[in-house]
Amino acid sequence: MKVGVLTGGGDCPGLNAVIRSVVRKGVQEYAFDFVGLRDGWLGALQGKVVPLGIPNVRGILPRGGTILGSSRTNPFKHEDGLQRVQDTLSEYDVDALVVIGGEDTLGVAAELSRQGINLVGVPKTIDNDVPGTDYTFGFDTAVGIATEAIDRLHTTAESHMRALVVEVMGRHSGWIALHAGIAGGANAILIPERPFDIDQVCDYVKSRFKINYAPIVVVAEGAVPQEGQMRVKDETLDEFGHVRLSGIGEWLAREITERTGSDARTTVLGHVQRGGTPSAFDRWLATRFGLHAIEAVKDGDFGTMVALRGTQIVRLPLADVTAETKKVDPSLYDEFEVFFG
Amino acid sequence: MKVGVLTGGGDCPGLNAVIRSVVRKGVQEYAFDFVGLRDGWLGALQGKVVPLGIPNVRGILPRGGTILGSSRTNPFKHEDGLQRVQDTLSEYDVDALVVIGGEDTLGVAAELSRQGINLVGVPKTIDNDVPGTDYTFGFDTAVGIATEAIDRLHTTAESHMRALVVEVMGRHSGWIALHAGIAGGANAILIPERPFDIDQVCDYVKSRFKINYAPIVVVAEGAVPQEGQMRVKDETLDEFGHVRLSGIGEWLAREITERTGSDARTTVLGHVQRGGTPSAFDRWLATRFGLHAIEAVKDGDFGTMVALRGTQIVRLPLADVTAETKKVDPSLYDEFEVFFG
Amino acid sequence: MKVGVLTGGGDCPGLNAVIRSVVRKGVQEYAFDFVGLRDGWLGALQGKVVPLGIPNVRGILPRGGTILGSSRTNPFKHEDGLQRVQDTLSEYDVDALVVIGGEDTLGVAAELSRQGINLVGVPKTIDNDVPGTDYTFGFDTAVGIATEAIDRLHTTAESHMRALVVEVMGRHSGWIALHAGIAGGANAILIPERPFDIDQVCDYVKSRFKINYAPIVVVAEGAVPQEGQMRVKDETLDEFGHVRLSGIGEWLAREITERTGSDARTTVLGHVQRGGTPSAFDRWLATRFGLHAIEAVKDGDFGTMVALRGTQIVRLPLADVTAETKKVDPSLYDEFEVFFG
Amino acid sequence: MKVGVLTGGGDCPGLNAVIRSVVRKGVQEYAFDFVGLRDGWLGALQGKVVPLGIPNVRGILPRGGTILGSSRTNPFKHEDGLQRVQDTLSEYDVDALVVIGGEDTLGVAAELSRQGINLVGVPKTIDNDVPGTDYTFGFDTAVGIATEAIDRLHTTAESHMRALVVEVMGRHSGWIALHAGIAGGANAILIPERPFDIDQVCDYVKSRFKINYAPIVVVAEGAVPQEGQMRVKDETLDEFGHVRLSGIGEWLAREITERTGSDARTTVLGHVQRGGTPSAFDRWLATRFGLHAIEAVKDGDFGTMVALRGTQIVRLPLADVTAETKKVDPSLYDEFEVFFG
Repeated sequence: MKVGVLTGGGDCPGLNAVIRSVVRKGVQEYAFDFVGLRDGWLGALQGKVVPLGIPNVRGILPRGGTILGSSRTNPFKHEDGLQRVQDTLSEYDVDALVVIGGEDTLGVAAELSRQGINLVGVPKTIDNDVPGTDYTFGFDTAVGIATEAIDRLHTTAESHMRALVVEVMGRHSGWIALHAGIAGGANAILIPERPFDIDQVCDYVKSRFKINYAPIVVVAEGAVPQEGQMRVKDETLDEFGHVRLSGIGEWLAREITERTGSDARTTVLGHVQRGGTPSAFDRWLATRFGLHAIEAVKDGDFGTMVALRGTQIVRLPLADVTAETKKVDPSLYDEFEVFFG
Repeated sequence: MKVGVLTGGGDCPGLNAVIRSVVRKGVQEYAFDFVGLRDGWLGALQGKVVPLGIPNVRGILPRGGTILGSSRTNPFKHEDGLQRVQDTLSEYDVDALVVIGGEDTLGVAAELSRQGINLVGVPKTIDNDVPGTDYTFGFDTAVGIATEAIDRLHTTAESHMRALVVEVMGRHSGWIALHAGIAGGANAILIPERPFDIDQVCDYVKSRFKINYAPIVVVAEGAVPQEGQMRVKDETLDEFGHVRLSGIGEWLAREITERTGSDARTTVLGHVQRGGTPSAFDRWLATRFGLHAIEAVKDGDFGTMVALRGTQIVRLPLADVTAETKKVDPSLYDEFEVFFG
Repeated sequence: MKVGVLTGGGDCPGLNAVIRSVVRKGVQEYAFDFVGLRDGWLGALQGKVVPLGIPNVRGILPRGGTILGSSRTNPFKHEDGLQRVQDTLSEYDVDALVVIGGEDTLGVAAELSRQGINLVGVPKTIDNDVPGTDYTFGFDTAVGIATEAIDRLHTTAESHMRALVVEVMGRHSGWIALHAGIAGGANAILIPERPFDIDQVCDYVKSRFKINYAPIVVVAEGAVPQEGQMRVKDETLDEFGHVRLSGIGEWLAREITERTGSDARTTVLGHVQRGGTPSAFDRWLATRFGLHAIEAVKDGDFGTMVALRGTQIVRLPLADVTAETKKVDPSLYDEFEVFFG
Repeated sequence: MKVGVLTGGGDCPGLNAVIRSVVRKGVQEYAFDFVGLRDGWLGALQGKVVPLGIPNVRGILPRGGTILGSSRTNPFKHEDGLQRVQDTLSEYDVDALVVIGGEDTLGVAAELSRQGINLVGVPKTIDNDVPGTDYTFGFDTAVGIATEAIDRLHTTAESHMRALVVEVMGRHSGWIALHAGIAGGANAILIPERPFDIDQVCDYVKSRFKINYAPIVVVAEGAVPQEGQMRVKDETLDEFGHVRLSGIGEWLAREITERTGSDARTTVLGHVQRGGTPSAFDRWLATRFGLHAIEAVKDGDFGTMVALRGTQIVRLPLADVTAETKKVDPSLYDEFEVFFG
């Protein structure tokens, strides 16, 4: 049997750990052959196929990123995309695919599976918002990096008695903001799932100053204020003269400064949250996902995705899991209300 | 309502995070009063009781150890222990206890609960071997520290083409060894649950050298070789002239050196695995345990212990969970066989 | 003798380590009394004076920030500033000051010294640009944090074959950019001391892509392109309708994207570089600075500043050192030319 | 010109950074050819010579260990060692060597230089005890790891009110112990340069307990008590029936326990101090050493060693620097007396 492996979407700590365990188990236990498809679905479209054996995966467990490259290419956005993917697979005698990716990549996988291509999915996202699995690898690393940054910012905030806003990743879900905010002892945590009241945020800030502590506000990049709270003057012109909104972190710092009279500053953590060596938790999870994915291939259990449930790895129908983003549950968010302000 | 809090057994990153969230929620949401019992059950025996309010728990979230101190004292090993505990609680008008500890501490708690004392347990152990909960806080931090050490040791092993043995915590269970070994890319992982065959370990070591890589062997301190494999000469005399066995790590390095002809060395990670700031995961888990424990107190749901199941915090009867140690499941261990050698 | 201690300017890892060693040695060896002046020169102006003894400095060695608070207040910008400072010192019977701060704070100190106030300076700046000393504490910590961020960004850049720009601190000098850029293996390092040629930067970027590696460009926030290279369209309107330039990192990413045709992104490290626990090097240096500063006080050697020369701590006249910023030497910068591109 | 590179002695973070900068500058700026000699002087003896070009050094800057391997082989301990080294160099047309190593490796280099072999030395030692240079690379990394371990151990010590002994590297010099001990806030620091008084150490321990803090004792592996203080019972029998002394850390913990009545424990940090990614400081220093070493080769300035003096890299005659070990200066040690006890 010949198995193709590809990684799609944004890079994420743990991708290499999955590739390694897929190949190690596939070769050593089932005597499968492997090829890598370069740069996600782009490699499938363009026939960019590379050899993939045990020597290629030695030493990659602790390395961030992906040795196979990645892209956001969607074959279904190309007229003859499906055909070209099928051509690549048959040209290289690929019997089955292990597809490692997030919502978009797995959505393509689900559709290809319906079209008869044998494949197994492995969920990947920094943001932890793939439904059906308790956690995705990469998330723990991102939360750890963000928490360490918040730890550091506390001392700056205290020394200058200044409010600090930390913008973390999370366009559609607030998982990183919530976990890192709780772990970092934030005084307000703003997530996309719940439009925030800027007046309440300012009240939190003021109540913190009142007891002589400096507030830290953690905000997911996709968080938004309640309707009507973002005014026209918040929009600036970009370099082409178009109106644009500044990032939510910058907006917040400006509002807090104006409304409370205390100078607030913003730090946007950005890409550092997604790069570098995976945490031990993510290496463990990614390794197990890989082992179970290749087992699913061997079982011929195609059209499925591996997922974490408690301490078990299970298989779910791909079709079920790609429908929507996993949001932060309101009751979970409310658990932590006591720490705000 | 007046609630006492105590921490027992070995220290563990996350203890302070539990204390903080118990007090924050208890005071702010339920208007409870709190006292701390110093040094675990010792404080209950000796009446060492200290005030515990929100100012005491400010800033302790990222700090390792426990602001309440700890000990391994067991009140039931004192003739009038139960009476003295009851006296302390009534002297200070303590209506209920939050007891944070491992097997021993929770065993005492279960017995005291049977004797009519109102209490809720919070499981704590670096070793992750409390049954009924997916994970305990402190474990992720310990695994992270051990994994980072293994990462570092790889480069030394490779530079000198030398086998390195890493002894990690785990007297009765191999959770830390298994997780850190897999995350660190170990070539053999030896755990108490499965007596190892020293010949096989040496085979793993030799097969690794054969492909020009240097082997790393991770061993839990409680791992033992199969019957008959540890010979008399392995016993040395201690300073009082008594026979003692050297640590298993040292024994392994010596055996590997003698049997394979390649010089092997040992590193014993020791106490560094249990100290210092908790990982983000452990701060999250410890915080949630604290929130749910004080909610159980408020509900009058005594004799219970909080536990993690998937992403949910549940309550279990204390009596159920303290009976035995949670071992590494053989099928989980076997999942990783492909990485050995 | 009664000694006042104050910390001024931006916070910096190691401030607490200085305070601790000043107080420990002053009390234990010379039986001095101490007070703290809160929030830099503001405390001297407003009489915000707090007790400072050994119990206050216990456990602060590893903590970032400053227990005395800080500000950028300049007493000479207040009409009766000098008088008010003198009044505060005489009201609290302060015989001498230990002044820990950067260029501005030490400039005030030099002037106060000329006016007859007994004081000793300790240089402090993340940016390493105080003349007369090989290094200042805080710098090594900042470089370490920036280097770790660059390490992480490499894997993201490689996975997506994308140029990444990292903007680090350094408004007037390029020390952090140069050290972190070299330690992080950057492909271009842009510093304020040398206006850069955007065409050359783009050549570096392209040459890197040509060998199938993804470029990392490290830029100090104060770096600027050569004259004429920044065009009008780079200016956007801020929220008050004023023209402003976006940060240099953002500008670079946009230019690289437009000029090379490859998508570039920016990460601005910001405040995380100045907070949190100091590195071992900074704790060592800050501790020694404190010990030598209080010795200078005891010797009555006022109007001086402690400084690092090789492995020795020396004393310099404050007047000499506050005149100008220490720049990156062109020959040092050129040493590393071989790594660019 | 053809240049050979070798790394000898124990591995050390930064070796790869030196190799990389030597090769990058040698190839790009001077068009030199390079070969690597495997495993230190062993490769020179046995003709184990490998190609070394820019592709070999890509990506190795952040990696610990050495891509060339290392050994403690001394060619002068082989009858025809010198001849065999000369044969290897002439067989591969090697015109000059860059020799990266510690005392032993550089001692061999000095002798080979006297015998007419063209070479330049680069000092390397975790222990920082090469004379003539302010610091060696690897040292800062080791101190950082040890300091982080001490930080972690503080919380365990406090939680259990227990004395903890930390044994760090340093057989002949106390540099790591002194730097990490000061950075970690140790209450006693014991170094080989100054035999310690066990009674005084116990006094330090007791005085710490008296103010309700738990003491940390940092001891270099080569530290010894004053004459007559180590009694016969401290010697145990090893597995071959020979008398051996246990490590100094273990000995100390036992003595402290017996003499003070408080239970003390030991952690031996061991190999983790020398492996893994170099700190930013060490990457900077190692990179500069490499650049200056290859410049010395190009200048034909053989028989020299590069060294750090303040912020400058200088060249010294190899003969001068290999004579003796650099010890901790008594006056430096005494600077810190105020922190003991």
